[in-house]
Amino acid sequence: MTRVATKISPLSGFPELLPAQRVVEQRVIDSLRATFELHGFANIETRAVEPMDQLLRKGETSKEVYVLRRLQDADAGSDSGLGLHFDLTVPFARYVLEHAGKLEFPFRRYQIQKVWRGERPQEGRYREFAQADIDIVGRDVLPFHHDVEVARVMVEALAGLDFLPGFTLQVNNRKLIQGFYSGLGASDVEAVMRIVDKLDKLPVERVAALLVDEAGLTRDQADQCLALARIRTHDDSFVARVEALGVSDPLLTEGLAELADLLRSCAPLATERVAVVADLSIARGLDYYTGTVFETRLTGSEGLGSICSGGRYDALADDGRTTYPGVGISFGVSRTLVPLLAQGAVAADRPVPSAVLVAVSDEESRAESDAVATALRASGVPCEVAPTAAKFGKQIKAAERRGIPYVWFGPGSTVDATHQVKDIRSGEQVGADPATWTPPHEDLRPQVVSTVISNTEETTK
Amino acid sequence: MTRVATKISPLSGFPELLPAQRVVEQRVIDSLRATFELHGFANIETRAVEPMDQLLRKGETSKEVYVLRRLQDADAGSDSGLGLHFDLTVPFARYVLEHAGKLEFPFRRYQIQKVWRGERPQEGRYREFAQADIDIVGRDVLPFHHDVEVARVMVEALAGLDFLPGFTLQVNNRKLIQGFYSGLGASDVEAVMRIVDKLDKLPVERVAALLVDEAGLTRDQADQCLALARIRTHDDSFVARVEALGVSDPLLTEGLAELADLLRSCAPLATERVAVVADLSIARGLDYYTGTVFETRLTGSEGLGSICSGGRYDALADDGRTTYPGVGISFGVSRTLVPLLAQGAVAADRPVPSAVLVAVSDEESRAESDAVATALRASGVPCEVAPTAAKFGKQIKAAERRGIPYVWFGPGSTVDATHQVKDIRSGEQVGADPATWTPPHEDLRPQVVSTVISNTEETTK
Repeated sequence: MTRVATKISPLSGFPELLPAQRVVEQRVIDSLRATFELHGFANIETRAVEPMDQLLRKGETSKEVYVLRRLQDADAGSDSGLGLHFDLTVPFARYVLEHAGKLEFPFRRYQIQKVWRGERPQEGRYREFAQADIDIVGRDVLPFHHDVEVARVMVEALAGLDFLPGFTLQVNNRKLIQGFYSGLGASDVEAVMRIVDKLDKLPVERVAALLVDEAGLTRDQADQCLALARIRTHDDSFVARVEALGVSDPLLTEGLAELADLLRSCAPLATERVAVVADLSIARGLDYYTGTVFETRLTGSEGLGSICSGGRYDALADDGRTTYPGVGISFGVSRTLVPLLAQGAVAADRPVPSAVLVAVSDEESRAESDAVATALRASGVPCEVAPTAAKFGKQIKAAERRGIPYVWFGPGSTVDATHQVKDIRSGEQVGADPATWTPPHEDLRPQVVSTVISNTEETTK
Repeated sequence: MTRVATKISPLSGFPELLPAQRVVEQRVIDSLRATFELHGFANIETRAVEPMDQLLRKGETSKEVYVLRRLQDADAGSDSGLGLHFDLTVPFARYVLEHAGKLEFPFRRYQIQKVWRGERPQEGRYREFAQADIDIVGRDVLPFHHDVEVARVMVEALAGLDFLPGFTLQVNNRKLIQGFYSGLGASDVEAVMRIVDKLDKLPVERVAALLVDEAGLTRDQADQCLALARIRTHDDSFVARVEALGVSDPLLTEGLAELADLLRSCAPLATERVAVVADLSIARGLDYYTGTVFETRLTGSEGLGSICSGGRYDALADDGRTTYPGVGISFGVSRTLVPLLAQGAVAADRPVPSAVLVAVSDEESRAESDAVATALRASGVPCEVAPTAAKFGKQIKAAERRGIPYVWFGPGSTVDATHQVKDIRSGEQVGADPATWTPPHEDLRPQVVSTVISNTEETTK
């Protein structure tokens, strides 16, 4: 409908996938969706924009927002008061308040959408990327077993992505660490948490010094905090190790019990690819979590940072009369996939849905080829008809270039006047009836293949 | 993660769906996708933004664009040079040029995404809406049979949406009308086409007057143009009716042959709900079509205008060396669905995926209820576990409010210590094994139901 300029170059920070790569992304989304729905999560989509005053409630994210302006606005240069959402939590909280009267609580929702951040692009950061979020929101109350539920659902969802590398879900509990710091005698618990959270960026000695200098701890107290942060177990044995540090506090006791419950409940879901660990160094920085916190590392790509994070917040939303507590977790679809696709660590075996190319002998008989395609589609076999009546060798080559495994020849074009289908990988050609033939199941749709050996950093590529 | 303001109001022009409405939209998208893939169309998604110079190539749409600005841009008030796409054709044309070396032609793609237009909202116009586009693009050449192909694929896709009202695909051909005007002796063929295109907005007498005053036709010539525009047939009989008007022109002959071919090829796809007609009044105004043009009316909602439009363009994209001709058609998902959902003409029978609510007797036995749910999910039955161990009457009521058809009781909670499942619509309760029980197929997923009788304007609601 329109010509486009001749100078075309990619936009930094806006990753875009080729068709075969999109097959992988779509397979990821379909698989996540199937798991979320099995667990009763309803899908919603929110609009891409929110009023700026909603987006700016968290001052520290303001620099990331893309503001919208109508090009031909009468008042040129004025903003529309709208910005693109930078996560799916702010819009979800707004959606809950706006539609609360029409929702049933606890409300389980999943949401798989693009989000935008107007930051300068850098390695592993995007300006547009897709997230897959699940949250459970209650009215006034939300029992702790829902924390266990979101963890289990996301672990099951990630385990289902069996063509991706493995994952480790790292879980901690804000009550546990805040109670520990408080029981230890820290006067500024928030400051301690903020400093300990820097352990993945600063040397341990530097963190210890900051705890003394900025959070006012003694050297012994600082060492106790660092000892806590070093605890990492695959089961509930972290409880004994925390207790051995000799700190006691009611909030700590509550946090230990919750985290132990979560670890025991997730233990049966662990597989060769997916681990769940209590990692007492996880704090999720400045976010407003009040209990369980989650981060996730992708095996072999730990440098990506957390690819799936979340936690419990006592007030997802609040309209002055009612508080809506929630617990949720957000999987970075683009953040995980885009680097893997770029490395070729995961790929689809063809860029088109077609399993069959129906050959055309001459333009006069195109309708016969169309009829074969119609019959195949009636059996659920995706197919396309050759665009021109080129020589059969050329038609086979064209199928090969698209990764289409089968070429169909009608009776007008075969020696013994029968329908024949050729597997162009093996060269085998057999008689077949378009009304009943179907390919082996694994050829029906593009296969997503991994070139990474599960749970190791080796690749076969 | 964040509190939101207490004052929440909907944003005009940004329709947002409740979970049960989203079930319908998702079903529409799944169904379209299945049809498109059966026909070998590959999915792509393009980024939401394009450089402004791409978006503004068509001067007349410039007022519709939302321009983006980074809130904390060092140069405050300056634009990023990026705007949100207002259709899926401009980004697709750019995608084809950017990735041409990695695509195989003819390239069939479908794309289902949101688009944005910064216009003042009015009835039936949105600022954010979803479209589903299919296009076939060739390199240098694209045979006419692909025009027939996109028409057939879209008709089949719309026919598959059997819970929506019927549709009429109206087809015409620019060669036919341009050849006719030219053969008639019109000196400004474009002007004639632009004026005839106003027939759905202006009285026929006014259009006749404009043809004389502005396009320089004689009154007889104007009458001939109006006679052509009145021709509307369900088969290729339009050819004889055009020939009876006594105009001859080589381009007209070519257009008649193409349109007749298309009508004959689509005839077998007509159903009670879906019609394909040659409608010689269709011109698609100012768009750059060069052959086939499509519009579509929704039965009973003709006032919505065309809900599915497109056509053939000889140059979708052009990089100075290579021209990429294309043919495509775009279905307005939001434009069609949002009004029908608002009227209640189509709805889902429950807002949650869950087919079963597993009751909880007491918090101590929650793990047993979780185990039942795990067993059901292993058979593909979506379910959720009751949030609290309320009285069973309350748990059943909660299921009822969500439209969940079955409630499961574990052996600890039933009189004869067996697992039992209750259909809460009929009240029937039977013994069942969680490892093997599944509900009837129609209860497995939310059903999308229509309250509109096919192909009539009556509603049962």
